Amino acid sequence: MGQVFTVAIVGLGSMGIGVAQSLLRAGLATSGYDPAATSLARFADAGGRVAPGATEAARDADAAVVVVVNAAQTESVLFGDATGAGAVSAMRPGGVVLSAATMAPLDARRLAQRCDAAGIHYLDAPISGGAARAASGELTVMASGSPAAFARAEPVLAAVAQTVYRLGDEPGVGSCFKMVNQLLAGVHIAAACEAITFAKRLGLDIDKVFEVITASAGNSWMFENRVPHILTGDYNPASAVDIFAKDLGIVADMGRAEKFPTPLAANALQMFLMTSAAGMGRDDDASVARMIAMITGLDLPGMQQQT
Amino acid sequence: MGQVFTVAIVGLGSMGIGVAQSLLRAGLATSGYDPAATSLARFADAGGRVAPGATEAARDADAAVVVVVNAAQTESVLFGDATGAGAVSAMRPGGVVLSAATMAPLDARRLAQRCDAAGIHYLDAPISGGAARAASGELTVMASGSPAAFARAEPVLAAVAQTVYRLGDEPGVGSCFKMVNQLLAGVHIAAACEAITFAKRLGLDIDKVFEVITASAGNSWMFENRVPHILTGDYNPASAVDIFAKDLGIVADMGRAEKFPTPLAANALQMFLMTSAAGMGRDDDASVARMIAMITGLDLPGMQQQT
Repeated sequence: MGQVFTVAIVGLGSMGIGVAQSLLRAGLATSGYDPAATSLARFADAGGRVAPGATEAARDADAAVVVVVNAAQTESVLFGDATGAGAVSAMRPGGVVLSAATMAPLDARRLAQRCDAAGIHYLDAPISGGAARAASGELTVMASGSPAAFARAEPVLAAVAQTVYRLGDEPGVGSCFKMVNQLLAGVHIAAACEAITFAKRLGLDIDKVFEVITASAGNSWMFENRVPHILTGDYNPASAVDIFAKDLGIVADMGRAEKFPTPLAANALQMFLMTSAAGMGRDDDASVARMIAMITGLDLPGMQQQT
Repeated sequence: MGQVFTVAIVGLGSMGIGVAQSLLRAGLATSGYDPAATSLARFADAGGRVAPGATEAARDADAAVVVVVNAAQTESVLFGDATGAGAVSAMRPGGVVLSAATMAPLDARRLAQRCDAAGIHYLDAPISGGAARAASGELTVMASGSPAAFARAEPVLAAVAQTVYRLGDEPGVGSCFKMVNQLLAGVHIAAACEAITFAKRLGLDIDKVFEVITASAGNSWMFENRVPHILTGDYNPASAVDIFAKDLGIVADMGRAEKFPTPLAANALQMFLMTSAAGMGRDDDASVARMIAMITGLDLPGMQQQT
């Protein structure tokens, strides 16, 4: 066609803005929308074209990247609310949706079917790697979808990802992989918080514990990443408690649907819910350690200001 | 004195034989004992001097390294049973015991006091790293004890360890660090087994799951180390289920003594106990996945032969 490949991005939070920066750096014409004015301003600063809504952002787009929190938000972006048209209705026919939110595989399959009915390809494309790697174009994408969806999404994937796992032709498989990852990640965060507070109660130097464990068989990606938040008492949300309450909630739903026990994930979910119930739902997910410290009377770094 | 520095090693299992090989490679005169004849034969092959018992191995030794399973075995080696003398009574005065078994910190302190009363130094020196690193002299040692104990143990530590963490002057601190490590390691093994069986139930290619997770935020040292046992169906014990049933049992005891909740460790302990109850206590600790597969009717690699 000779036309410029155009991309819409909806959702410009810490991950979305990084994805947008990578798209723009790759030279793709990128329109974006987020309900938060501060996010839109950052996007404009990065050279993006600000749209007044998700549907407008997606007007004639070849690809729409949706980086919101969950399935419900994704569905609202793509298909509008009960009355309004959504992004899918505005896209160029034969375009592709890249759905990045963590969601139940059943939701991914349902959204894919609705896109398919509208003549739009759907790539089930949850992402992993954090905000820094989003901004540097080095995300991991756990993707599944038709060969046509992959082909159409190629310019976007090339711009944002270091590794694209092609996990199958059916939407939902990518989301299954992401949920297995989230099961482990959530348990590991809660375990890190349990272990570091236990160490504190035993009277150990917890900075030294971090040094020893990260060099030992007890280490995990999450222990290494989250425990520094506890050691410095910095609970500004890199990723919030309520994100893992949601993701382990999806794992719990999936387990019940499959009649499959996931006792550790269920236990970790309760720890995130306790932390959220204690008023820390929007704080960093390492706040599980603060919740344990509150209950047990421990004095972790940064907690004296709280009282 | 001009005398040769002599070492005794008691316990020549997969870790102990590696430690012995490292001692011998460093040129230390090393006597050893293990109740298993095959272990003694391997030790002799490596150039060690076989002794007829722990006490005889420790005769006039400057250092005694005890690499047995738990506190009770360590105490029996050091002090004999109700009637007999133990290794401590035979050592050169002013020698040092390096106690490597994972045990409760209270046990480490008690054994140290008994050694102290007998004029022998005690280094609380749990080890980490696995059999391969024991044999290559690259263990991690989480050590605490008096400066005199460290000084006396130096030739041994230099021979067997890549990293020696000096964690304090009091015996028990090293064991506290080790227990925090074991809490995490045990939860991570159980979580790896929960996640990989959940992935199997979802119909995912579990070899691909291993590839994706080890490159993602859900990774842990234990996931990376143990899941290959599940993928190949090889449950020959690198480390047995009953070891973690023991270690998480110590964590449970410590938590109750401290009135400190460790819900994830408690849950993981139950999973190891279920696996042991199903007859797999002496198999590899990745057998937790087989236990889940038995309950849920999953067909993991290597399981068809079982039926």
